[in-house]
Amino acid sequence: MTGTPFDFARLFAPDVPPPAARWNGRVKFDFTGGNNDPDSLPLDGLIAAAESVLRREGRRLAIYGVEHGPQGYRPLRDFVAGKLAADAGIACTADDIVLTSGSNHGLDLVNATFLARGDTVIIEENCYQSAINRFNRIGAKVVGIPLDANGMRMDALSNALEALERRGVRPKYIYTIPTVQNPTATILPVERRREMLELAQAHGVLIFEDDCYADLTWSGRRPPAILAMSGRGGVIHVGSFSKTIAPALRVGYVVAPWEVMSRMLALKTDAGSGALEQMILAEYCARSFSRHVPQLRRALRAKLETLVEALREHFGASAAFDDPEGGIFLWVKLPDGVDTTRLYEAALAKGVAINPGEQWSVNREHARSRLRLCFASASHEEIHQGIAALAEVCRRDFGVRRQGTP
Amino acid sequence: MTGTPFDFARLFAPDVPPPAARWNGRVKFDFTGGNNDPDSLPLDGLIAAAESVLRREGRRLAIYGVEHGPQGYRPLRDFVAGKLAADAGIACTADDIVLTSGSNHGLDLVNATFLARGDTVIIEENCYQSAINRFNRIGAKVVGIPLDANGMRMDALSNALEALERRGVRPKYIYTIPTVQNPTATILPVERRREMLELAQAHGVLIFEDDCYADLTWSGRRPPAILAMSGRGGVIHVGSFSKTIAPALRVGYVVAPWEVMSRMLALKTDAGSGALEQMILAEYCARSFSRHVPQLRRALRAKLETLVEALREHFGASAAFDDPEGGIFLWVKLPDGVDTTRLYEAALAKGVAINPGEQWSVNREHARSRLRLCFASASHEEIHQGIAALAEVCRRDFGVRRQGTP
Repeated sequence: MTGTPFDFARLFAPDVPPPAARWNGRVKFDFTGGNNDPDSLPLDGLIAAAESVLRREGRRLAIYGVEHGPQGYRPLRDFVAGKLAADAGIACTADDIVLTSGSNHGLDLVNATFLARGDTVIIEENCYQSAINRFNRIGAKVVGIPLDANGMRMDALSNALEALERRGVRPKYIYTIPTVQNPTATILPVERRREMLELAQAHGVLIFEDDCYADLTWSGRRPPAILAMSGRGGVIHVGSFSKTIAPALRVGYVVAPWEVMSRMLALKTDAGSGALEQMILAEYCARSFSRHVPQLRRALRAKLETLVEALREHFGASAAFDDPEGGIFLWVKLPDGVDTTRLYEAALAKGVAINPGEQWSVNREHARSRLRLCFASASHEEIHQGIAALAEVCRRDFGVRRQGTP
Repeated sequence: MTGTPFDFARLFAPDVPPPAARWNGRVKFDFTGGNNDPDSLPLDGLIAAAESVLRREGRRLAIYGVEHGPQGYRPLRDFVAGKLAADAGIACTADDIVLTSGSNHGLDLVNATFLARGDTVIIEENCYQSAINRFNRIGAKVVGIPLDANGMRMDALSNALEALERRGVRPKYIYTIPTVQNPTATILPVERRREMLELAQAHGVLIFEDDCYADLTWSGRRPPAILAMSGRGGVIHVGSFSKTIAPALRVGYVVAPWEVMSRMLALKTDAGSGALEQMILAEYCARSFSRHVPQLRRALRAKLETLVEALREHFGASAAFDDPEGGIFLWVKLPDGVDTTRLYEAALAKGVAINPGEQWSVNREHARSRLRLCFASASHEEIHQGIAALAEVCRRDFGVRRQGTP
């Protein structure tokens, strides 16, 4: 397949993105991506679930959607409905849920339903990279709202909505990760959720709530979902099993009323998302989800403590961060002189992968010296060694020295 | 979630498709869709494969792409490369293959790489409905080429390419299902494949070869893939496990050189396709694929024989068709007066689902009295009963009577 003289490039669509780089395996110290703790993966439970659900109804795999229709395997939708009621206060049924190939697929379906080139979307100014990339690819205009220790600032949101209204612009939606925000790990308090709903209602704007990390608070408690607090609708909710069970299992979901669901289903032309993963997950979760998640939270919190310890040891006050209340990532501020996009390159050469702030933000100035460190997948020892290696690169290339206790 | 007063519809994107209908379960006699024979599903093998691959390397599910990168689980790509070499004569390696969420996902990635609104695509005039729908949604202009008993007619292709050239139009590609064509079940002979390659080369057009049904020839033999015959490249090849193992497992693949692969990977923003399905499939196929497929072919051929028998019994010469050399569907011609789109509605009311010809063709006049009957998933008894019920609707609503032996 090499050296072919056919010139494909002249046939590419005009908007095709630049080529991806070749995969060269994972780096030694990987602090990127939503990878999870391998030791916490409930392997025995998943194996038992696979055997039992396949033995009972595996022959249904011969039928697209395992005879449960385009919204996905019904027992998993039933489980999600029950979980959302118990944990997030959302009143919905399996009919309001579509299972997707990860929550990214949910983002695509919602975006395709609502967004056209030139539309405006409001987001937290530090935000999930893949969401930002999706909006950019669609050609949507993104307005970032600053966050504080309690998530999106409602004064700033109110100002932004008014400024847009003065310009005659009505945004399509507010895309928000209110519970364990990515990358800041902030949790939006109930009062702000209410305020966001009021602002959205006043301006006729939809709220698109991404709840992917909401199961991973250290306390096990979380505010009600914005969807749960919305009396009159106007909220679409997306979630995932990537963070609680396994990211390589591509199973997420969107909760939406039929008016929206029926359009998303018309756009969902994948002949169903992977049914085997849905079946195994449903079987496992019905038995064990509520026992598994608290164990996972403890393991993740222990990893975070190791990361914080390593940062204190090797950076001291030169690395500043808030103590997250949950999740799998830490949003870290280095001294102003450090350009984390340059740091990313230098660290990679030493076998350390980080997420540079500029990829996780639409506020370049703010994000320039910030980075995201994901702590779930590396072992405790790798966290220590990796942060030591990162500190060494910071010292050598950027003159960052350990400062006294922050 | 009902009765919400929020008006979502005013926020929909201008090109959002019409709403999907609610799922009401499968009809009693379902002759639609690429569903397969439940009794042939290799359930014990899949269960054993799940246990063994998860026990050995299940903890990798904690990492996106199970540490095999964005092209998917390496052992399955190795299996596909070996299978394509042995069966289709294609020389490629795992590096030339990306695993997708079914071949539909492959169609989307290839289309997104090459097609823009207004582009022209050449297809067989009777063609896979989801491919036609995709081209329409993108806004591509579709040129249909007539088929005969040996697939796409090369004289007609040559004429169409010349006519386009005279108008200054260079099509992006020829999308073809050369081996067990959907819906006609024709197999394009080697000579025509060579001719298609020459025409494509002469006109600077890419060939997009969809080989989804190629494993299902009754003889177990097939011509070499067009990709295999292409010395200088210019062919992209897509395949699937839906037809050989199980459609609800969403695993397909695209074979393409890095120049194209690197663009498709940049467009593949799903954080990987379902790894669990890839792992189980790889484990199963390495052991048993070559034993399983011949058994499946025999079961499918027996179903076809039952369908042919039922059509002879209830329609006689009123239902005309060529005897397919493989696959899971029969393309049937009813008397000229029968509009199969109307028949579809009338039959559905009696619990019989068919694919009306107009949905499987861009030549309305030709397709108007034709229909596609899928025979893999119904039992032999259901085939007999369903065809009897269909014949009764044809008699009652369209005056179609059984004619003497065709």
